[in-house]
Amino acid sequence: MVTVNHNYLRLPGSYLFSTIGKKVRAYKELNPDKEVISLGIGDVTQPLVPAIIEALHNAVEEMAHAETFHGYAPDLGYEFLRNAIAKNDYQDRGCDIKADEIFVSDGAKSDSGNIQEIFGTDNKVAVCDPVYPVYVDTNVMAGRTGEYNTARENFDGVIYMPCSKENGFLPELPKEVPDLIYLCFPNNPTGSAITRDELQKWVDYANKNGCVIIYDAAYEAYISQDNVPHSIYECEGARTCAIELRSFSKNAGFTGVRLGFTVIPDELVRDGVSLHSLWARRHGTKFNGAPYIVQKAGEAVYSEAGKAQLKEQVGYYMRNAKLIHDELEKAGFSVSGGVNAPYIWLETPDKMTSWQFFDYLLKEANVVGTPGSGFGAHGEGFFRLTAFGTYENTRKAIDRIKSL
Amino acid sequence: MVTVNHNYLRLPGSYLFSTIGKKVRAYKELNPDKEVISLGIGDVTQPLVPAIIEALHNAVEEMAHAETFHGYAPDLGYEFLRNAIAKNDYQDRGCDIKADEIFVSDGAKSDSGNIQEIFGTDNKVAVCDPVYPVYVDTNVMAGRTGEYNTARENFDGVIYMPCSKENGFLPELPKEVPDLIYLCFPNNPTGSAITRDELQKWVDYANKNGCVIIYDAAYEAYISQDNVPHSIYECEGARTCAIELRSFSKNAGFTGVRLGFTVIPDELVRDGVSLHSLWARRHGTKFNGAPYIVQKAGEAVYSEAGKAQLKEQVGYYMRNAKLIHDELEKAGFSVSGGVNAPYIWLETPDKMTSWQFFDYLLKEANVVGTPGSGFGAHGEGFFRLTAFGTYENTRKAIDRIKSL
Repeated sequence: MVTVNHNYLRLPGSYLFSTIGKKVRAYKELNPDKEVISLGIGDVTQPLVPAIIEALHNAVEEMAHAETFHGYAPDLGYEFLRNAIAKNDYQDRGCDIKADEIFVSDGAKSDSGNIQEIFGTDNKVAVCDPVYPVYVDTNVMAGRTGEYNTARENFDGVIYMPCSKENGFLPELPKEVPDLIYLCFPNNPTGSAITRDELQKWVDYANKNGCVIIYDAAYEAYISQDNVPHSIYECEGARTCAIELRSFSKNAGFTGVRLGFTVIPDELVRDGVSLHSLWARRHGTKFNGAPYIVQKAGEAVYSEAGKAQLKEQVGYYMRNAKLIHDELEKAGFSVSGGVNAPYIWLETPDKMTSWQFFDYLLKEANVVGTPGSGFGAHGEGFFRLTAFGTYENTRKAIDRIKSL
Repeated sequence: MVTVNHNYLRLPGSYLFSTIGKKVRAYKELNPDKEVISLGIGDVTQPLVPAIIEALHNAVEEMAHAETFHGYAPDLGYEFLRNAIAKNDYQDRGCDIKADEIFVSDGAKSDSGNIQEIFGTDNKVAVCDPVYPVYVDTNVMAGRTGEYNTARENFDGVIYMPCSKENGFLPELPKEVPDLIYLCFPNNPTGSAITRDELQKWVDYANKNGCVIIYDAAYEAYISQDNVPHSIYECEGARTCAIELRSFSKNAGFTGVRLGFTVIPDELVRDGVSLHSLWARRHGTKFNGAPYIVQKAGEAVYSEAGKAQLKEQVGYYMRNAKLIHDELEKAGFSVSGGVNAPYIWLETPDKMTSWQFFDYLLKEANVVGTPGSGFGAHGEGFFRLTAFGTYENTRKAIDRIKSL
């Protein structure tokens, strides 16, 4: 008798962004004349920069000729890309990471969902609350949690680390020691950043207690302050306790191009087993490499031209972030984030729930954001706006919100 | 205390093709003057056809401009591609499959590895022996098998269906009823094909016993005989028992481009749950879509120009298949496959083991093939050659083998 994976049935009906998509489509169908602006899902709007376009065209041309055609990619990703990553993202920042410790993938969403597969189902997971839903949902699917607790609005058996206005949206070291700790800095959804000294405390805690930190640094390109680390490997001892996930989606506009990578240092051993070897086995068995043309596009991100053009693109989005942050603050909203991250975290006015504010904004201002409660119980009463729109639309959306 | 996924430790040390790669690299390092020809891993050698190259360039250009830029793709894949698939691969062949039943992915290897995640770990799995290693390995990783049995050279708790010379390399209906049945036709590695009438028996068996067939049709483009089905949905009743996996790797040379899809009909319900809804939840949570430019390339596969050019490309490889098959048969080898598939399945001479023949061919003829025993215990004494080389190299490799 075929059985399904019953863990799936514990999950809420649909993925957060699918729900938002449906609500927006329904509104647009009923109000075809309204111009709806989305500052909701973290999708970029600026085109790929010229250095990347050129690399893509060149790689496509290579695929047109037998002598330069590329079939299956090497398991870990092409060396040209892993070398560029190791040098630019790590060694140039003083982080001791080698190319062979880097696994190229089709994006950080896949990696952050798949990474839990190499661990036993008896590990205790800690996440921030609010949190990017993929970390929790994939652990639910794997059976690493209990049932959904409707009273607490979260899953039994998970250690939730509240990120609230009181603690500046930074989690505190958990009293009950977890096995796997998911951290994302600069943070999605709150836009908060952690200093190097504060992150060092997490690394020390993990090493002392034998935990593994799964560190999502997808938004590191948006860091503007010096004391904020771009990588967890800037902290001493991180090589023995941390896996780092990175994305090209937000620093290079690759949301529709799909490229990311995971770093697992050689020294990271748990339960007597090298985590690098386990991930290599998974990567080699359940994945078949990112497209050659996409890996060439990734290489161009690290070219001199690419770096200069992308610095400008990130600057464009950060101008939006500053606009949203400053204008809404001036208008009397309680806002945070937006300084080292492309996300602005907003307290809903008049004690509205997050979804009430979502409906209100959609209806009254035709602006789409993301309800904070969709990221966890402690996101209730908050709302996420993203800086990834065009400047014109962002300006217009903020003016509409202010005029409410 | 962090535990790793101990199921991984049951697996043989490395993925088959990684082992072959290492052996070949070692031989080349010791013998830099030898020209080694690979008819081993099923990687293609012909460049992408002009219609696909044009589509790629156009899509890259779209990504260069804000008005035509594409970010995150829809969960199931772009409609333009799903419509083209539904029409060309299914409706035009009389198969009742809708675009909404198609999930676009980054390739059939990922899908064939991931599909088991939506099922409970208590399901009994049946596979052919020999078999594509991913089906078994991913079920081992998920804990759906017992330990590796060194005497039998396979995993406890799996139903292996021998494919031998005696049964024409076609499995027989298993006496112990499995839950999940993996079938791949045209077959990798044996190159055997199943007739529509024979496949109908499997569909009837699955419907009668409540099994789910996971049908891998990655090689359907190589079918040359009329009574061989291109899709399991050509059989009556398949919509209530079968999931179909498809790839663009072999029909369009996308091994380095990465595109595939999975079909799950709406009616496919087990354990009271729609499998379509479960896969949609997985796809939406652990994957973020195939690249836009790659999906546009996939669309071009179905254009008039694309179809004509790819027919020629498949014909090129099938000329290789015929050459390998006919010449080795003339030379006294016992061979099968190669008529509806790009694989030729060869009995090793002089009762050599598969790996002995591998080492012998590598050393004496500088030709790389794949040891049959790497695909399972019943592959012992057999050897796989692929038709994906260039015609010149294939010719040369066969001449070398014949002259031994």
